[in-house]
Amino acid sequence: MAKKYLMTPGPTPVPEDIRNEMAKPIIHHRTKEYQAIFKDVTDGLKKMFKTANDVYTFTSSGTGAMEASIVNVCSPGDKIIVVRGGKFGERFGDIAKAYGVDVIPLDVPWGSGPCPADIKDLLKANPGVKGVYTTLCETSTATVFDIKAIGEIVKATDALYVVDVISGLGADKFENDAWGVDIAICGSQKGLMIPPGLAFCSVSEKVWKAVEASSLPKFYFNFKKYKKSMAAIDTPFTSAITLVIGLKKALETLNAKGIDNVIAEHTAQANAFRDAAKAMGLGLLSKFPSNAVTAVNTPAGMDADALIKLLKTDYGVTFAGGQEQLKGKLFRAAHMGGIDKEHTIESIKALESALLKMGYNFKAGSGVEAATRILGE
Amino acid sequence: MAKKYLMTPGPTPVPEDIRNEMAKPIIHHRTKEYQAIFKDVTDGLKKMFKTANDVYTFTSSGTGAMEASIVNVCSPGDKIIVVRGGKFGERFGDIAKAYGVDVIPLDVPWGSGPCPADIKDLLKANPGVKGVYTTLCETSTATVFDIKAIGEIVKATDALYVVDVISGLGADKFENDAWGVDIAICGSQKGLMIPPGLAFCSVSEKVWKAVEASSLPKFYFNFKKYKKSMAAIDTPFTSAITLVIGLKKALETLNAKGIDNVIAEHTAQANAFRDAAKAMGLGLLSKFPSNAVTAVNTPAGMDADALIKLLKTDYGVTFAGGQEQLKGKLFRAAHMGGIDKEHTIESIKALESALLKMGYNFKAGSGVEAATRILGE
Repeated sequence: MAKKYLMTPGPTPVPEDIRNEMAKPIIHHRTKEYQAIFKDVTDGLKKMFKTANDVYTFTSSGTGAMEASIVNVCSPGDKIIVVRGGKFGERFGDIAKAYGVDVIPLDVPWGSGPCPADIKDLLKANPGVKGVYTTLCETSTATVFDIKAIGEIVKATDALYVVDVISGLGADKFENDAWGVDIAICGSQKGLMIPPGLAFCSVSEKVWKAVEASSLPKFYFNFKKYKKSMAAIDTPFTSAITLVIGLKKALETLNAKGIDNVIAEHTAQANAFRDAAKAMGLGLLSKFPSNAVTAVNTPAGMDADALIKLLKTDYGVTFAGGQEQLKGKLFRAAHMGGIDKEHTIESIKALESALLKMGYNFKAGSGVEAATRILGE
Repeated sequence: MAKKYLMTPGPTPVPEDIRNEMAKPIIHHRTKEYQAIFKDVTDGLKKMFKTANDVYTFTSSGTGAMEASIVNVCSPGDKIIVVRGGKFGERFGDIAKAYGVDVIPLDVPWGSGPCPADIKDLLKANPGVKGVYTTLCETSTATVFDIKAIGEIVKATDALYVVDVISGLGADKFENDAWGVDIAICGSQKGLMIPPGLAFCSVSEKVWKAVEASSLPKFYFNFKKYKKSMAAIDTPFTSAITLVIGLKKALETLNAKGIDNVIAEHTAQANAFRDAAKAMGLGLLSKFPSNAVTAVNTPAGMDADALIKLLKTDYGVTFAGGQEQLKGKLFRAAHMGGIDKEHTIESIKALESALLKMGYNFKAGSGVEAATRILGE
């Protein structure tokens, strides 16, 4: 059977040594052996986040941790600013509304990013705003936001700065503490190279004041329970043990390389993929392309979902499609986590073949040539 | 290295073929391939629950699904009856309180079970009660409750019948539909033989009326989102893909054997373990012992945690200790999921050796002899 290349922005391929680690006989979670693993994981996550703050591990998808970032700090009627420039920014707004929190939206066109000055204006116009909620990499549009610049503005106010780094961490540059982020939210199945099932929140000192004032009900995602358990290097509820064990291995690999080097590797892949697309005459959706994932517009008249299906069926390459309003218009290829140079080159080769098969006119080989100029043979 | 025997009531040992299945290269969750797996899992769960109702799969620990069973049907100020006879019954009460739901407790001594007539009286005395919340197997006391008898009472009322079957399913008899259960809550790491990280709720038609009236806020655990996604054989948020893949394999094994036969096997192991304990002169905590787990009182003057430590260190056998008020007084051995006859016999052998080493006076070999009378050599 030909090798398969999973190029989706989550899950990303899980390296074999991590899969084998998770396949060992399971151990109990209330043991010294597991406690040592969980300590290593927590320390390793802090290095990835570049934070001295606590990082809590939830057994949930990333959405659970997004919910945690709202229910732990808000009360009904509180106002938060939400940057909505794609599916995941909108989700912050949906969660807030479900909990009776007022959303002050900063809507940006899909594929573009927020202007920091607009955040400044909104903060001025709305004193008492509880937080600014935004995204490092908006996966649905493959766009990276200027989290550092927004951080400069938010940190001068009483508002909390909450950033979804679920698909950005490990591919787009991120500095939790230096950029003044109060809560960063991550998931396991992207840059962290393990299967989905775990989510994480870094939590700053500034957050705890808001926690004390928050009257929204919560239990499973209650930060206070996680803080109390963390003091004993534990979680309040049974963790997804095997995923935590896999994460220990993944973090060892990532931190041995060094987070900046990991990001540099994925940046090269992202650049290679984007240059390949341009060489083949294809346009990108995003004005500010992320290094975690690239969204490529299909040629006029070509159904993106048909292209994706052909690539999966005939070439074993899995790209993701467009979401919501972008469905059928583009495909997305990721560059993070277990996706390496081989994935990048082979997927471009397959893309060339599939496009030729579908009758698109371009210079065959131009995509691979552009990519190898950056990545080497 | 000597073989290890994990005898804890969650996680239970994950059979090798299931671990290998989960160690295969990961696939994307929005594919036909995964959809077919998720359909098999959902159908397989229905067989295990003995229900025609929907069964939803959450990425969370069992506590997340317990929270779901409250936030989806209650409004602030609603009253629910909660049977509190151990740590997990108490957790229902704690979740309810966190959400402003009034708890009418039925407190029973740890190790005993609720009297159905008491539930009847409470329902009569408190018209308009939203639900009766209880547990099939109270893991902390190793006690099985009479879920069938309580169901007869609750089904004649407007109250919902909510049962935590997290550690009971697959070991203690359970019939979701025949016993009138409206929401049954389960977790993955017990009788279902896979690692922790997934939780499940069966949801009856009667529940949906309460859902419409419920004003408690929710998002990640919102039943409506899961119902909508289930129509497309999907989940609203990224599932713990590898655990779902492992669960397909586990359910194939369990349902091929037949759930009644699976229960009969574990019942034999539970009987063997209990007879062994009695033959060694040890008493059980529970008046109504579960077949999922047995709680054995340690001899007067012997620290249970020291015994557990010795068994783990010198014999590779992991028992669980007592929780909360029972800490240090007993050990718990499970009989469900991947725990088989070999585990049962070998753990009893080790227990005999450890007790002798700790100076307990009993007839050596009597425990193993009693167990093999039931299980064979």
